Amino acid sequence: MDIQAYIRGFGTRALAASRKLAVLSKKERIAIVQAMADELVAQHDAIVAANQLDVADAQAAGMAPALVDRLTLTEKRFQAMVDGVRTVAKLTDPVGRVMKRIRRPNGLRIEKIRVPLGVIAIIFESRPNVTADVASLCVKTANAVILRGGKEALRSNLAIAQALKAGGVSKGMPEDAVQLIDITDHAAVKELVQLTGLVDVVIPRGGERLVRAVVENARIPVLKHYKGVCHVYVEATADLSKAITVLDNAKCQRPSACNAAETLLVDRSIAKKFLPKVGKWAKKAGVELRGDEETCAILPGIAKATDADWEEEYLSLILSVRVVDGIDQAIDHINTYGTHHSDAILSGDIFVVQRFMNEVDSAAVYANASTRFTDGGEFGMGAEMGISTDKFHARGPMGLEELTSYKWLVYGEGHIRS
Amino acid sequence: MDIQAYIRGFGTRALAASRKLAVLSKKERIAIVQAMADELVAQHDAIVAANQLDVADAQAAGMAPALVDRLTLTEKRFQAMVDGVRTVAKLTDPVGRVMKRIRRPNGLRIEKIRVPLGVIAIIFESRPNVTADVASLCVKTANAVILRGGKEALRSNLAIAQALKAGGVSKGMPEDAVQLIDITDHAAVKELVQLTGLVDVVIPRGGERLVRAVVENARIPVLKHYKGVCHVYVEATADLSKAITVLDNAKCQRPSACNAAETLLVDRSIAKKFLPKVGKWAKKAGVELRGDEETCAILPGIAKATDADWEEEYLSLILSVRVVDGIDQAIDHINTYGTHHSDAILSGDIFVVQRFMNEVDSAAVYANASTRFTDGGEFGMGAEMGISTDKFHARGPMGLEELTSYKWLVYGEGHIRS
Repeated sequence: MDIQAYIRGFGTRALAASRKLAVLSKKERIAIVQAMADELVAQHDAIVAANQLDVADAQAAGMAPALVDRLTLTEKRFQAMVDGVRTVAKLTDPVGRVMKRIRRPNGLRIEKIRVPLGVIAIIFESRPNVTADVASLCVKTANAVILRGGKEALRSNLAIAQALKAGGVSKGMPEDAVQLIDITDHAAVKELVQLTGLVDVVIPRGGERLVRAVVENARIPVLKHYKGVCHVYVEATADLSKAITVLDNAKCQRPSACNAAETLLVDRSIAKKFLPKVGKWAKKAGVELRGDEETCAILPGIAKATDADWEEEYLSLILSVRVVDGIDQAIDHINTYGTHHSDAILSGDIFVVQRFMNEVDSAAVYANASTRFTDGGEFGMGAEMGISTDKFHARGPMGLEELTSYKWLVYGEGHIRS
Repeated sequence: MDIQAYIRGFGTRALAASRKLAVLSKKERIAIVQAMADELVAQHDAIVAANQLDVADAQAAGMAPALVDRLTLTEKRFQAMVDGVRTVAKLTDPVGRVMKRIRRPNGLRIEKIRVPLGVIAIIFESRPNVTADVASLCVKTANAVILRGGKEALRSNLAIAQALKAGGVSKGMPEDAVQLIDITDHAAVKELVQLTGLVDVVIPRGGERLVRAVVENARIPVLKHYKGVCHVYVEATADLSKAITVLDNAKCQRPSACNAAETLLVDRSIAKKFLPKVGKWAKKAGVELRGDEETCAILPGIAKATDADWEEEYLSLILSVRVVDGIDQAIDHINTYGTHHSDAILSGDIFVVQRFMNEVDSAAVYANASTRFTDGGEFGMGAEMGISTDKFHARGPMGLEELTSYKWLVYGEGHIRS
């Protein structure tokens, strides 16, 4: 099989479909996304049956229970997937919005308007509901999408994509607006991310290894985050009981999330007072602490942090702890060891807070709130395509607006440049 | 010499400088850019002397006169360079602007604010004034910049960069905010565009070959256009005498510009009437026409266009001409053979114009105006870093706003996620 030609075919078809999508009205696209949800419901049995085959194979192959769980489409998850698509149908559509109007001295009228990006490629792992989330967000914004899921979920993803397509097409969606790559060969990804001129952006959603492989091979723009090493900095003037509450939420509410905290920074002036509270909380919450020298002196018996700890995304109930000598060292630590994702200060001093907000170079910077809020839903975007720690095009949670570009429309009356 | 380590040094220093730049006030940055202009004037003699050495070497090496001219810093060009920097100092600064304010139902206050991109790398050819343009735009927006110019202009660029630096530093600019790469080895570019985590974006400004080489090697985002194959489409209802005026401007006002027209599309219903006027104009203007079969039948004696002509950026007084059977074929031709840069329709029919504006997938789409207006200055941006035909981050002329990213500031009172 000629994989290069095969994958190029996906790109060519997607581009053609994106042109057709671009001329549909908002109303037509709403009807398409609603029909996608209806057809998921109509094909419930076929989708669940396909998923059960994937799950059975995964179990037989000895996949870890946590991963099997992620793969499994329970009734509750199926319903959530359908509800998600219905929510996307209702979201405010940014396409066509006028971002700027300029009238030039020579009389030219210029409009900057939002347009679809065109063709979006998504590379993701395991959870089959991503297929429905992503396809509905893309089509809602008049983008064609090429999906590439994990091979362990291939039958589930194919069944879901098939339903989305059938639903969409029944309301006038071009057939190739939603395409799922149906071969599991690794070379397919490499070809996909090199489709210059056909695919406008690739979004890898998965572990750091997957993201790095995409960046390494891509010749088209990539929207991504590698990992989230997020910090909670407890400054001298913090409300210490609130600090424990926020820390607990940032670390424990969902430790596997990219916006969960991995490192606690504590001002020296309050370390002796605050760290024993942290020790007590950690014991109760089942959190393993790894401290720098000063922390270990105050909390004897905890593990010593190595340099590698400051850059580690544990994704589990482990927290590194460092004593800092104030706002400067805290900012420096975060900008040096962090991943520019989500970082929080707890402080009662408005000037210190302002410095932290200005100088911490992260997608989301928090004052007296948990880092766990970095999420499209929590920011009021309704749904998200993922989170970016890049500074390019989109930063932080990516909703519908982040799936658009713009173009300049210039109206004259025979104007020429002098 | 360890080129990798040497170039990495530029990145590390630039990142540190960008952190310092980010905390300067707008007022401080204005003073810095003004001092840059003053110091260019103060070092006029040294800069011109360095340029004369570059020019003499280029002539001795047999460089084409047009390229030698591009390299030469005449008194007029020197003054224009200084004026350009003074203009940049006065432009409205987007950094810190609140783009969105959100109050969430749980009481969280969210602000989306413009921040600098961080570190910008520019790779450019020949014209030494680019050093001053680019450095002033970057520092104005609190970005650190790493410049890599053509080797034939190295002494000129070094002298200009040295003046910019001295001027800036005198007003508190961190020294490494402006750095020019002082080795001419090709490997330097390759290393520069792979500085993930240090450089936020690279902007190649030059011929298609340079741009392709950068994209091929880059592991960081690239803002670019490869080339501009721009179209003028004369629709059935166009004012034919205005059409000639606009066509003349689009083709001849500066044929070497990326927004100059390369292809004329003419509706079949007016071809017999309009093409003879085109033939007459072309003869007078010294433009070589290359037509499709129908065009050649109407204008016997002109060259026949081959398939390659539709994708050719002539950058000279050559124009390909095709007869189309209406708006659909015109749009299809432009989206297929064009480069998504700047394309114009001449028409008196508002509905046809609207279809063209919506469906032509280009950075700038024109109705009854010359494509030559695609330019930061003409769009009222004051100055530009270049033009993007990507749909990612920036599309069309790139001014100050396009040199910024954003971050999310989230203010709570001990908020946690439930």
